[in-house]
Amino acid sequence: MATTSKSSSRKPKSTGDQTWVYRFADVDKAEAYCDGSWDGVRALLGGKGANLAEMTRIGVNVPPGFTVTTEACNTYSKIGKFPDGMWEQVLTALKSVEEATGKKFGDDTNPLLVSVRSGAKFSMPGMMDTVLNLGLNDKSAAGMVKLTKDERFVFDSYRRLVQMFGTVVMGIEDEAFEDYLTEAKKVYRVKTDAELNAEAWKTITEEFKTIFKKEVGEEFPQDPFKQLELAIEAVFKSWDGKRAVDYRNAAGISHDLGTGVNVQTMVFGNMGNNSGTGVAFTREPATGERVLFGDYLINAQGEDVVAGIRTPSPIAKLKEEMPAVYDEFEAIVNRLEEHYREMQDVEFTIEQGKLYMLQTRDGKRTARSAIRIAVEMAEEGVISRQQAVLRVSPGQVSQLLHPQFDEGAKQEAAATGRLIGHGVNASPGAAVGVAAFDADLAEKWGKAGKAVIMVRPETKPDDVHGMLAAKGILTSRGGATSHAAVVARQFGVPCVAGAEGIDIDVRSRTLKAGDVIIREGELLSIDGGAGEVFKGEIPTVEPDFEREQFLQKLLGWADEFRRLNVYANADYPADARRAREYGARGIGLCRTEHMFFQEDRLPVVQSMILSEPGSAEEAAELEKLLPFQQDDFYGIFRAMEGLPVIIRLIDPPLHEFMPSHEALALRAAGLRLMGDRPNELAQIEELMVAVKGLEEFNPMLGLRGVRLGIMRPAINAMQIRAIFLAATQLSRERVRVKPEIMIPVTSTYMEVKTLREMVDKIAKEICEESGVEIEYMVGTMIELPRAAITSDKMAEYSDFFSFGTNDLTQTTFGISRDDAEGKFLLEYVETGILPENPFQVLDREGVGYLVDLGVKQGRKANPKIEIGICGEHGGEPKSIEFCHNVGLDYVSCSPFRVPIARLAAARSALIDDGFSSK
Amino acid sequence: MATTSKSSSRKPKSTGDQTWVYRFADVDKAEAYCDGSWDGVRALLGGKGANLAEMTRIGVNVPPGFTVTTEACNTYSKIGKFPDGMWEQVLTALKSVEEATGKKFGDDTNPLLVSVRSGAKFSMPGMMDTVLNLGLNDKSAAGMVKLTKDERFVFDSYRRLVQMFGTVVMGIEDEAFEDYLTEAKKVYRVKTDAELNAEAWKTITEEFKTIFKKEVGEEFPQDPFKQLELAIEAVFKSWDGKRAVDYRNAAGISHDLGTGVNVQTMVFGNMGNNSGTGVAFTREPATGERVLFGDYLINAQGEDVVAGIRTPSPIAKLKEEMPAVYDEFEAIVNRLEEHYREMQDVEFTIEQGKLYMLQTRDGKRTARSAIRIAVEMAEEGVISRQQAVLRVSPGQVSQLLHPQFDEGAKQEAAATGRLIGHGVNASPGAAVGVAAFDADLAEKWGKAGKAVIMVRPETKPDDVHGMLAAKGILTSRGGATSHAAVVARQFGVPCVAGAEGIDIDVRSRTLKAGDVIIREGELLSIDGGAGEVFKGEIPTVEPDFEREQFLQKLLGWADEFRRLNVYANADYPADARRAREYGARGIGLCRTEHMFFQEDRLPVVQSMILSEPGSAEEAAELEKLLPFQQDDFYGIFRAMEGLPVIIRLIDPPLHEFMPSHEALALRAAGLRLMGDRPNELAQIEELMVAVKGLEEFNPMLGLRGVRLGIMRPAINAMQIRAIFLAATQLSRERVRVKPEIMIPVTSTYMEVKTLREMVDKIAKEICEESGVEIEYMVGTMIELPRAAITSDKMAEYSDFFSFGTNDLTQTTFGISRDDAEGKFLLEYVETGILPENPFQVLDREGVGYLVDLGVKQGRKANPKIEIGICGEHGGEPKSIEFCHNVGLDYVSCSPFRVPIARLAAARSALIDDGFSSK
Repeated sequence: MATTSKSSSRKPKSTGDQTWVYRFADVDKAEAYCDGSWDGVRALLGGKGANLAEMTRIGVNVPPGFTVTTEACNTYSKIGKFPDGMWEQVLTALKSVEEATGKKFGDDTNPLLVSVRSGAKFSMPGMMDTVLNLGLNDKSAAGMVKLTKDERFVFDSYRRLVQMFGTVVMGIEDEAFEDYLTEAKKVYRVKTDAELNAEAWKTITEEFKTIFKKEVGEEFPQDPFKQLELAIEAVFKSWDGKRAVDYRNAAGISHDLGTGVNVQTMVFGNMGNNSGTGVAFTREPATGERVLFGDYLINAQGEDVVAGIRTPSPIAKLKEEMPAVYDEFEAIVNRLEEHYREMQDVEFTIEQGKLYMLQTRDGKRTARSAIRIAVEMAEEGVISRQQAVLRVSPGQVSQLLHPQFDEGAKQEAAATGRLIGHGVNASPGAAVGVAAFDADLAEKWGKAGKAVIMVRPETKPDDVHGMLAAKGILTSRGGATSHAAVVARQFGVPCVAGAEGIDIDVRSRTLKAGDVIIREGELLSIDGGAGEVFKGEIPTVEPDFEREQFLQKLLGWADEFRRLNVYANADYPADARRAREYGARGIGLCRTEHMFFQEDRLPVVQSMILSEPGSAEEAAELEKLLPFQQDDFYGIFRAMEGLPVIIRLIDPPLHEFMPSHEALALRAAGLRLMGDRPNELAQIEELMVAVKGLEEFNPMLGLRGVRLGIMRPAINAMQIRAIFLAATQLSRERVRVKPEIMIPVTSTYMEVKTLREMVDKIAKEICEESGVEIEYMVGTMIELPRAAITSDKMAEYSDFFSFGTNDLTQTTFGISRDDAEGKFLLEYVETGILPENPFQVLDREGVGYLVDLGVKQGRKANPKIEIGICGEHGGEPKSIEFCHNVGLDYVSCSPFRVPIARLAAARSALIDDGFSSK
Repeated sequence: MATTSKSSSRKPKSTGDQTWVYRFADVDKAEAYCDGSWDGVRALLGGKGANLAEMTRIGVNVPPGFTVTTEACNTYSKIGKFPDGMWEQVLTALKSVEEATGKKFGDDTNPLLVSVRSGAKFSMPGMMDTVLNLGLNDKSAAGMVKLTKDERFVFDSYRRLVQMFGTVVMGIEDEAFEDYLTEAKKVYRVKTDAELNAEAWKTITEEFKTIFKKEVGEEFPQDPFKQLELAIEAVFKSWDGKRAVDYRNAAGISHDLGTGVNVQTMVFGNMGNNSGTGVAFTREPATGERVLFGDYLINAQGEDVVAGIRTPSPIAKLKEEMPAVYDEFEAIVNRLEEHYREMQDVEFTIEQGKLYMLQTRDGKRTARSAIRIAVEMAEEGVISRQQAVLRVSPGQVSQLLHPQFDEGAKQEAAATGRLIGHGVNASPGAAVGVAAFDADLAEKWGKAGKAVIMVRPETKPDDVHGMLAAKGILTSRGGATSHAAVVARQFGVPCVAGAEGIDIDVRSRTLKAGDVIIREGELLSIDGGAGEVFKGEIPTVEPDFEREQFLQKLLGWADEFRRLNVYANADYPADARRAREYGARGIGLCRTEHMFFQEDRLPVVQSMILSEPGSAEEAAELEKLLPFQQDDFYGIFRAMEGLPVIIRLIDPPLHEFMPSHEALALRAAGLRLMGDRPNELAQIEELMVAVKGLEEFNPMLGLRGVRLGIMRPAINAMQIRAIFLAATQLSRERVRVKPEIMIPVTSTYMEVKTLREMVDKIAKEICEESGVEIEYMVGTMIELPRAAITSDKMAEYSDFFSFGTNDLTQTTFGISRDDAEGKFLLEYVETGILPENPFQVLDREGVGYLVDLGVKQGRKANPKIEIGICGEHGGEPKSIEFCHNVGLDYVSCSPFRVPIARLAAARSALIDDGFSSK
């Protein structure tokens, strides 16, 4: 049952008499058609169909049915009609179901009712259309009433068919039906659907048929075969519907897979109080704890649970209400988890005390639970450690390390009345944003860069685009398995669901919680882990990595598997300590200029900049800075004892340390008018000249990095002295230090040669003075195209290369990140001119070409060279995969991303070695 | 006698008994040693030695002598002493010279005197050291007096030996001798050396020996063999002297060639009035006219002519003074020119009526004369047209097209007393700059970017670094063959030499011409073609290409040989016409944004920019610009009838069209204080917001080029409409047009695809409306590394590529030209961190890699694609050679550079095909 994420390339063996329809019981035939590949079966039947067939095969009680293949869907998409022979095969399969159930489709006395559901290879919850109770019409409804003696149930079912068929198949707005239903409940003076009696449902069914006719222009079809035909076609069509396409785009699912259509005997959870329906997970999807978790509703159909319209009961309560059913259910789901070796998400229906399984699939889960489940399953011996590592995505690690609210701030907010509501902790994480009351606005604001909390009474598949663009989701209805909760968990968006104390009024675009009113555009904070809703903004803090024991264990395994080393970018001792705690095995980028910006140093830095290069004044100012830098390096070296620390010499252009010319000009103009402080004016005017002299049209491409090192060598010399003074100091204190000096912005090997000579000279002097030997390395950033192109020469003078892919992306594309992202880059990604933002995901085609060239040439010229990456891509999983493939030695990223990088590196290595998650 | 510019890689056949010394008469042996390669002989003996040997072989009267090889020099450089056996071979060769002359070296009665001169493979005038009259000492001088009965001549010669030996071999400052000589002339109340009598020279000789002892600390060596040994060693050492190294660096001559040493029997031009010495060219070196040209001095030694201390007579006067000698001389030099098939520069001496040839070499010449000589020699049938083309360097064409002074302005300056002097028109061209009175200052100012005229009484080899950095050279002494004149012509620096009416006072750092005084740092203009000196600045005008008939002829031949097409960059119809006149076969880059900056259009452009993209207001403003652009294109298409015109869509970021934020802020601050014009203030404040929104940190890498085309498509659409409206208009007027639309700043093929679709759509519309078919092409600039790397995909949507090597250099190096050149790039070139300024000469290693990649991938994906270059490199000869090698279809450059490009392209093709200039 090996499945991979690739779609099967299998072709039909014959076109004339192709099999378009497989009964659940025919799983062996489907498997044979797919040459024994379970992945092939999933591709052919869709995940839902394949699992129904598989459950049937292992003897679980599944209502009989059959699956129309994804190939039929794809053929339909191409030719615009059912493929030849498909309908006939549907009828044959239906006959077989009739035989199995003893019922007859369209029969007036003992009618077979079926559901029609989509099911693609990859689960797309709520994205595809479902129609229940097909086979009902006026006559068979009457027959059913006779048979079941339950008019209320029959007309509740019939009205559902009309409603679902009307909305899903014919495209009527759901409000048309729901508004009427709400009115009806008022008329009947009841609060819930369950209180409506048979007469009411009968009237409602008639009214629904009238609505149907009014909206569609035709009568509701009384021919069950017509119902079936239209429903299958609707599923096919929905594959290419906007919301399905959007979802696939967002989730990275290929558009050419197609969906299967599952036609299955209806069983009824709404046949009285010994009936019910529910969904459950074999483990807790938010925490991963090994307990059965789920919701059910007595006397309801499945859609009622998923849609979150009624708030259901927790599955544990079923043990009290129907202990025998519960025991059977527990046994089945445990068996399913064992069989699939994965946490399962199941749907079940109890029809008059009899348990049916309607679906099983790998369960969606939060990042936290995914990690715990993977680790515990590996420890239970169900899967291997390699599989465990492959079952957790770097994105999930990232979610787990999302910022959390500051506890103190939360308590203070609660104390001051800003905690305005509680709901289900549906998807963990802290989110702050402005309230947006519909998906379109949430999307619009989100794309414009606003942090948005999408606020809805409940969410529907149509809302997914807004949910994806939001920082958080708040609903007032539905539980932990509601649409909002499932989608939010999958995409790692914090979510509080079913916050019933909060009144969300979409029309007036406000939410009310007691006295508090929050209007659209006002700030809101939600804690998806605690289920709390706050007015205004709560400050966030970093997550507590130490307490994430399952993650720590998983990453420990990952460290055994990965071949890329993981370093961190850290400028201060505190960063370095955190990086180490997060598992960094070195500092890949320590920026030295941040130290220059500190308040107590900046005036000295400015005087130094304004002094004549090579002058005594310059030397004097640098002498003042030296102890500061030495302290900085001392702290970092100490924090990273025994591990390499790569220190980049000063990088930014000097004018970054100076005030802006415009600000000075305005001050000068002011002083001139007042006319009473000539000295200050003269000073400012002098400063303006100096600042003008330092200004550049394109500072990114100006006098910075090594160019500064060559034009004002004294600055670099001071930095190098500080490094070796700190190193020798620590060495005398018996702390092992591994300084590596990195030269930025090089474009010719001569720059590297010049700086390397400077480093070697100063190192020699200081080591001789102090009588201590320091092992060190000198390397260069490869962050300009020419550096990559001439990497063979660069390598001759370099102990290591570090690809600075931020700048390399800027120069390879000729795009300044500061200027581009807002001005055109997002639009480029949006309209597909670029597949991804190259500053987020390394552009393999362009930038990657240069990285590959740089590695190949560099290693050829200097086989001992160490090569890594220290751009932001170093913490991005797809980019890390590239780094692995291209043969780098290490990636370096921000401390918070180190765990992500450790996992991503391990996954790349495992995939490289042929491991899979299944 | 084939010579190429490559140094021979020949190795000595045996090391034990290597031949270090060849007599002039032994040229056949040397040639055999070099496997018959004349280039090898020149490398072995140096150019001077080889030519002396060659003249000896063809029977010209050359004083006997021998050459110590360059291999001996190189061995000396390595081991720090003469190679084993060399000195013995010198003595043997000297013996042979003694036999040929019947004199004896160091003899007291009939002494052999010799000169010692350097001679490297490539002529380096004045760069290497010469010592004359070796063999004289107190005793042999006395013997010579007896023999010649000319005490005056003997002691003049002796004092020259002491002086030259002292300065050249022992490194004494020349002033030590010259100051005394000047004093002596005052004492003897004479004005010139010639007036000094025997007694005077005897006294001076003694005094020179005293000076020698004082400066050196030892007596002047009386042993002639010691003199010879030290002199040869001094020549060897001078090869590695600073000025020689500087010269080789400037002229691009390899440092490992070494110099030969020529030891030759002295003949004397200073043996009375039937003696003399001179230099001459077989054709006029300034104009190229076929007349004998040169200077001579009666009763003088050769150094007097070259040093320019005495002003010599023109060679034509020799015909009157010594008709027989003149006829013999004329016959010899004609024979030499015929033999070498090149204009010759000869040195000769007449010793008591007998003519000796001391040197012949290919003559230096001005650009103008080089062209005329090459063309006329080809027409005379002496050389082929291919050789003629190869004999003219692109740099010479460039010199010829140097700007000239505006004639009217010159006449006006003359009328107002600003024409302050005349001199020899030593090197043509107009130059304006500030006066600098020494070479170091000229160099310093020149490097700092100042235009400098270097002003000296006369120049010496030590001054070359300043001469190279100057825009022009002015001397008050010396003629057309003086050091200043020769060097200036070679490097194409305008020069007025021997402006005797001008008094140049180096100490007070002023020049005086009548009442006019010009101080250091004040402006001066010189016309090196007319020999005129002006106070202040004279405006320059473009050269008159039409009148350059020899150049036109040569370029006509070049056009037959070249395989690269030559286009021009031109934005206006006038430019286009000039480009065509200069031989451009198309427009390779027509920038459209210049048109937007015109005064009458800028306000419309600004309104357009400030309007909402896609708004009616934007459309309205663009509608106003449309007729302007249409007119622009109409004019250019008409000027280029029948030839391709490549139009680049708008390139710069929009803020370039707006006022600066600082300027607006200051105006706003002013208005706020006055407080009386609130409307204007509000307007400015609004404008400030808009300008701020357009501002970019790195505009080079910002929203420009195609990015603008995608974000504000209406602007490009207007431009494309204008192009096709102009084209259809002309087409109806029966003018053939070939518009090619070029998309700038692309980094992904999707940009090209998007714009190509826009062009095709608009073209179709307009052609259909007008009922005219226009053939057009759409192509892209390759000016970002990613465009080159993904050129295969780019090529699928491109009819042509144009490498924008300015921007490609900026992004490949990560260097902004605007910021870098002054701030660090010149320093980089100076200190050898970069071999050349990559914005002048295309960087083959880095940028060239990308060009090559772009061409290879582009052609593979689209074999019909046309590929060219439109950066400034398109007019630079070395870069054009690269373009030829890499297989481009065309180069495009500024109109003035078109002739250079035509020649450079032809030379590349000829060299490729194995042609050489010899």
